[in-house]
Amino acid sequence: MNLPFDARKLDALMEKEGADLLLASSKDNVAYLLGGYRFFFFEFKDAIGVSRYLPLLGYRRGAPEKAFYLGNSMEHWQQEWEPLWVPEVANAHWHSEKAAKDAAGRIRKLGLAKGTIAVEKGFLPADAYTTLQEELPDARLVEGQAILEELRAVKRPEELALLKKASSAIIECMVKVMTTTPAGATTLDIAEQVRKEEVQRGLNFEYCLTSAGPGWNRAPSKKARWEKGRALSLDSGGNLHGYLGDLARMAVLGKPTPLMKDLLAEVEAVQMAARSAVRPGATGAAIFEKALAEQAKCPHKDELVFVAHGMGIIQHEAPRLTSAGVVPYPGPYENRPLEAGMVLSIETDLKNREVGFLKLEDTVVVTPSGWEAYGDGARGWTAGEG
Amino acid sequence: MNLPFDARKLDALMEKEGADLLLASSKDNVAYLLGGYRFFFFEFKDAIGVSRYLPLLGYRRGAPEKAFYLGNSMEHWQQEWEPLWVPEVANAHWHSEKAAKDAAGRIRKLGLAKGTIAVEKGFLPADAYTTLQEELPDARLVEGQAILEELRAVKRPEELALLKKASSAIIECMVKVMTTTPAGATTLDIAEQVRKEEVQRGLNFEYCLTSAGPGWNRAPSKKARWEKGRALSLDSGGNLHGYLGDLARMAVLGKPTPLMKDLLAEVEAVQMAARSAVRPGATGAAIFEKALAEQAKCPHKDELVFVAHGMGIIQHEAPRLTSAGVVPYPGPYENRPLEAGMVLSIETDLKNREVGFLKLEDTVVVTPSGWEAYGDGARGWTAGEG
Repeated sequence: MNLPFDARKLDALMEKEGADLLLASSKDNVAYLLGGYRFFFFEFKDAIGVSRYLPLLGYRRGAPEKAFYLGNSMEHWQQEWEPLWVPEVANAHWHSEKAAKDAAGRIRKLGLAKGTIAVEKGFLPADAYTTLQEELPDARLVEGQAILEELRAVKRPEELALLKKASSAIIECMVKVMTTTPAGATTLDIAEQVRKEEVQRGLNFEYCLTSAGPGWNRAPSKKARWEKGRALSLDSGGNLHGYLGDLARMAVLGKPTPLMKDLLAEVEAVQMAARSAVRPGATGAAIFEKALAEQAKCPHKDELVFVAHGMGIIQHEAPRLTSAGVVPYPGPYENRPLEAGMVLSIETDLKNREVGFLKLEDTVVVTPSGWEAYGDGARGWTAGEG
Repeated sequence: MNLPFDARKLDALMEKEGADLLLASSKDNVAYLLGGYRFFFFEFKDAIGVSRYLPLLGYRRGAPEKAFYLGNSMEHWQQEWEPLWVPEVANAHWHSEKAAKDAAGRIRKLGLAKGTIAVEKGFLPADAYTTLQEELPDARLVEGQAILEELRAVKRPEELALLKKASSAIIECMVKVMTTTPAGATTLDIAEQVRKEEVQRGLNFEYCLTSAGPGWNRAPSKKARWEKGRALSLDSGGNLHGYLGDLARMAVLGKPTPLMKDLLAEVEAVQMAARSAVRPGATGAAIFEKALAEQAKCPHKDELVFVAHGMGIIQHEAPRLTSAGVVPYPGPYENRPLEAGMVLSIETDLKNREVGFLKLEDTVVVTPSGWEAYGDGARGWTAGEG
């Protein structure tokens, strides 16, 4: 069978966790296992009627020919245009509990009534989970998050192509908005303009953090305005067919002051130091070491915060480089070698009382020979006309 | 306390279900209880790191002064601009399990360790649910879906204003796309154009079903094209601050044939018959009776399907008018009187071998004197230029 993911890797990951069957239920992981297929009708929301959309993909370890997919009743339309690789498909559900009951029946038929089933406990709703427990009282339901995240960690060329395109588009949007926004615009207007630009370029907008100096508040608001001479930080994520562009850039309405230039140069130095360590075989610890050593040399070192992590479909995903980041996730890659095709998000911010909030966030891909940065333009001060 | 919802109604609904505390966790219901507040960063996605965004709002029956809200750690930014009515707020979580543990502790402090807690079993993830079970072993966790849906059933004037604006915008977008699309465009291009138009008008696009005659497949595809002389059905939903515009309209590239005119007139007749029954005090059964009687008179009655249901934040919500619809939800309003401020989605489709798929979907609000249709333009054949 021609599968859109590395089935040997998945089998090995499942074996390590003792999982006989993987039951994926989050839209991102189901799409990954289906080679990018996402049912368009529920791409942006889940709720329908008294329940919700719950796609369920069952993958028996070592036996893709026994995989099953349970979708919504309307889903056959899309599958006529885009056939699934999964041999057993039932587009039949409007209720998460009924979908789970259907899945349990198929799991029993596979002889796994006493098996170990890996589920996404953060993305399987309680009613579906308790239904699985009731219908499969002798099965063991274990957490499948790590299996799925690790499976996705090395990106295929077509995934990298989408990430590159999404990253470039995000930068285009930011520069457009930074250079066309009038003085006094609210950060809510600015974020909305970024959203419109991203959608015009075919992206699915996810968020836009904004901060107009000298404030540090990053939530867009009609109470915050970008005024002449002030800094603006934009940090926006938008995905292209599920693959995220997520970058942060700086602008100033007019010309940057000498202090502004110095501060952004410090942020830049930390960012470039981190990149310099990126290559196949490098560890998360090595990347942090380089960045933190550079930070220690910076005049404003106490105002700087550095963080780096994997990204791709989800904005924080494998490889997890450290357990010491601002977001306390476990970091298995702190001492494990990176591989070509892994994608990092490298972020440095700086909070200054006079200028406000500064940040660069870059997408850096591990390549066979080192690294490549996607959407790597506009890393200095972009001058707005006001 | 000045609450953004009808607390007396909520208390009564909770009492009927025996619920001491309501723990809302879906983004839609949390936003409803917070008067429209939605944390912008997770408006479009949930996944973050090894877990997901999970806002939790706890409401003690009869005691809004004891309510609590648990958000993500970044959420304080937005709340500085938009303070919440909830007295106890902790923006502290990156993991659904930890958020649930925090909620359980607060529920114990409220003296409800043995209480009845209404949760959203379709929207509370399994890990959060099992954490609640472990932390509150003597509590009873019951389904809160019906409480929340019924609470939202009668819309306030500001909600109706958003629904009206969203509905009008959807029609504008459809007419724009119908009248500017060149012959031979794919339905995928057409749906994407609808998305862009909706976002330009400030909506959050949700979906666009498309069908180019004579086919009936409603999934947008690059394999389906809208050709000269052919019918196009568009059925799109997009929300404005959470309030849904969801309508379906018809276009033809060129002029409608006599058969096309006849078929749409039949659809229209069923739609208008349904409306004629809408008023405070009417039942779902009365609406269906009128529509089905009209359908029975139609020459193409066997090709017609009529359905009607409540809508607003979710595309199928209370009031549920029938248990006989295409989507088999229970219908408590089949024999219960409608109230002013309830909002109905009324839909009739027709599948014809020669013309293809035809559909009108209208948004009809129960007013004190009868009904008002939102976004009620372009109900005939909109002629495309090709």
